[in-house]
Amino acid sequence: MVEQVDKHPVTPRSKDEKEAVVNRLKRIEGQVRGIQKMIEEDRYCVDVLVQISAINAALKKVGFSVAERHTKHCVSSAVKSGEGNEAIDELMEVMKQFSK
Amino acid sequence: MVEQVDKHPVTPRSKDEKEAVVNRLKRIEGQVRGIQKMIEEDRYCVDVLVQISAINAALKKVGFSVAERHTKHCVSSAVKSGEGNEAIDELMEVMKQFSK
Amino acid sequence: MVEQVDKHPVTPRSKDEKEAVVNRLKRIEGQVRGIQKMIEEDRYCVDVLVQISAINAALKKVGFSVAERHTKHCVSSAVKSGEGNEAIDELMEVMKQFSK
Amino acid sequence: MVEQVDKHPVTPRSKDEKEAVVNRLKRIEGQVRGIQKMIEEDRYCVDVLVQISAINAALKKVGFSVAERHTKHCVSSAVKSGEGNEAIDELMEVMKQFSK
Repeated sequence: MVEQVDKHPVTPRSKDEKEAVVNRLKRIEGQVRGIQKMIEEDRYCVDVLVQISAINAALKKVGFSVAERHTKHCVSSAVKSGEGNEAIDELMEVMKQFSK
Repeated sequence: MVEQVDKHPVTPRSKDEKEAVVNRLKRIEGQVRGIQKMIEEDRYCVDVLVQISAINAALKKVGFSVAERHTKHCVSSAVKSGEGNEAIDELMEVMKQFSK
Repeated sequence: MVEQVDKHPVTPRSKDEKEAVVNRLKRIEGQVRGIQKMIEEDRYCVDVLVQISAINAALKKVGFSVAERHTKHCVSSAVKSGEGNEAIDELMEVMKQFSK
Repeated sequence: MVEQVDKHPVTPRSKDEKEAVVNRLKRIEGQVRGIQKMIEEDRYCVDVLVQISAINAALKKVGFSVAERHTKHCVSSAVKSGEGNEAIDELMEVMKQFSK
């Protein structure tokens, strides 16, 4: 694991970047609430599964955009300062979990 | 696609069943809000990705429990009344989407 | 787990069915050999990854066709003879592994 | 896409590296042949699915080791020469396909 005392990205996320990710997560939060409603209304199981698949896909998209930014900033910066391999091992480890 | 005029499970979900699924979804909703907070606090990307993977895993679990119930009730009932193949085609179609 | 002393499908696969699946597997086998050649020729990593993704997708397709047949024959037969739940638990268990 | 006229890794794979990957792929090839035999012997569908899942897992492992090497060599080299973003976009694109 890469030592990250402060555990922040090397380049702080800008206000706009934060807003874009948070907005996507708010939409996902709304979709999760939507499924709760479907369960309470006893809606057809396959329709529920289609919704769950849609949320999973949306979360994967957010995850890939986070991973991309991480690689472009944190990993690239580690590579430039000669500590790339540790950062890449950490990245691959989390991508393995993520791609399950 | 199986014709489902009313789009409900053949056996209605009991109050307890609904509560169990809704509680799991509420926990997932809380996790999604947790990631929003992580983004706002500009937390380390890999930690965000670990959380997103956890939510994906939790959603898959809910999805499989919905699929299991669906197969035990709706699909089984279709099989018994001689309309199994259509119900199974529909199930496989949604499992394909879901396993991406 | 469903007790399957002889471990065969309830409806034996026909000669045509076997041939269709085996042909798809032979194509996949050829693709795996193709990647070996790519490695030996030191081909570009991303091209190798694209090929591996293609094989994974082809294997998933075969897997889903096996799962569909299994559900239409073995699971349906178990449902009709009143042992559906065990067969469905087994199916869900293997689908979980498969969708990783 | 990163322009790769010759389409080779920036650091050629060593003889040992090639051998290690090819051996893993040969094992996978053997597993694919094993499934063909299972189909010909009309073996139980769930056992076939377990084997297919095992091959998928083995292929994912090979894929991640290829992706790791690619990131440590090709992507890192691109980052150092100021062309990191293109290489990272290409990496993310193939990881998306791969994680399906």
